[in-house]
Amino acid sequence: MEEKGISQAVIGRLPRYFRYLGELRDRGVERISSQELSEMMKVTASQIRQDLNHFGGFGQQGYGYNVESLYREIGKILGLDKTHHFIIVGAGNLGRALGNYINFERRGFIFTGMFDQNPDLVGMEVRGVKVQPMENMERFIRENDVDIAVLTIPKTGAEKVAERLVRNGIKAIWNFAHVDLNVPPDIQVENVHLSDSLMKLSYNINRYQQEQKEKSEN
Amino acid sequence: MEEKGISQAVIGRLPRYFRYLGELRDRGVERISSQELSEMMKVTASQIRQDLNHFGGFGQQGYGYNVESLYREIGKILGLDKTHHFIIVGAGNLGRALGNYINFERRGFIFTGMFDQNPDLVGMEVRGVKVQPMENMERFIRENDVDIAVLTIPKTGAEKVAERLVRNGIKAIWNFAHVDLNVPPDIQVENVHLSDSLMKLSYNINRYQQEQKEKSEN
Repeated sequence: MEEKGISQAVIGRLPRYFRYLGELRDRGVERISSQELSEMMKVTASQIRQDLNHFGGFGQQGYGYNVESLYREIGKILGLDKTHHFIIVGAGNLGRALGNYINFERRGFIFTGMFDQNPDLVGMEVRGVKVQPMENMERFIRENDVDIAVLTIPKTGAEKVAERLVRNGIKAIWNFAHVDLNVPPDIQVENVHLSDSLMKLSYNINRYQQEQKEKSEN
Repeated sequence: MEEKGISQAVIGRLPRYFRYLGELRDRGVERISSQELSEMMKVTASQIRQDLNHFGGFGQQGYGYNVESLYREIGKILGLDKTHHFIIVGAGNLGRALGNYINFERRGFIFTGMFDQNPDLVGMEVRGVKVQPMENMERFIRENDVDIAVLTIPKTGAEKVAERLVRNGIKAIWNFAHVDLNVPPDIQVENVHLSDSLMKLSYNINRYQQEQKEKSEN
């Protein structure tokens, strides 16, 4: 498996391949050509071949890809054959939504603990996990082999909480707080900045409307 | 304002510039050099200059950028000087989290309506907006000048709901359903596929651990 020098752009596309292959597999499809996959995914067949070639010779001329084995290989590359324990810090609506998302378990992400500083939320249960006060967090991380923390708190407290997480052995942060965290380079961070995403949508609406206006004026 | 031919990569970075400039503005900072902005944002100064040059001459040699005017200009480019009305389809935890997010209002996105097929959720209030049954959706969109729909429902029903939204005049969909929607090209779609994001995080954890292992073996 040749994995060196793969760009983040290719990595960013792998989950989507994984998703489509999973759906094909669930429908009982055994093999698929890059052409068929291209039509489904609305990506050129040559991009698909290029992307998947990074991971060795899964495709065969005249046969296409074996859905099951390609699905499994991509899953392995994504690390989904491993198990990770995660906690959620912030038991508001967003934190609860993520805690309730059962699919994460299927991918090897085990929802282990939940924390909030609001005493009204402490004791509440989310899919069998009880919300604990923030003071319990450090000890819980160390005793339960937790490697991922999901941050669903406002940006004001996020930096401080991130420091506490890192000091106690967290390896990765899935960050929904509206701020870019300053953590050591060996901590993996994946940001989901929802406002940024909404602004991109806003830009595209705006640009489209301007184009339409210019067209009607010409 | 020269806006032609701007790549989606540059567009994708604009919300982040907007966020940092907004913070500087809130702190009373009047001007900033590309060098200082570079250190804050951890992007090279030359990338900042290149990105911002797309939008005309905001920077001045030896002076830097005027924070307030650059903030305002980027906001305009992002369409944030306009008002949009949005509805949320799906009143589960994620939908409620988004409905409660007050910052959207500050950016001109007005939370107008909320819909769910679950009768237990109908009648519930989220920040003053009552959850309505799905049957009311079409009429509500037409009567309330709604242009954006936020889709926070499972993937099974998403395609059908998207069709109904488009047929009734929605211009843009902020899609949290775990499926790529098939909509006409004049409908703007911004996807937030949370699982894809988690898988990227998983990939990076996995790769880092492998690198560490290889190092210790050499």
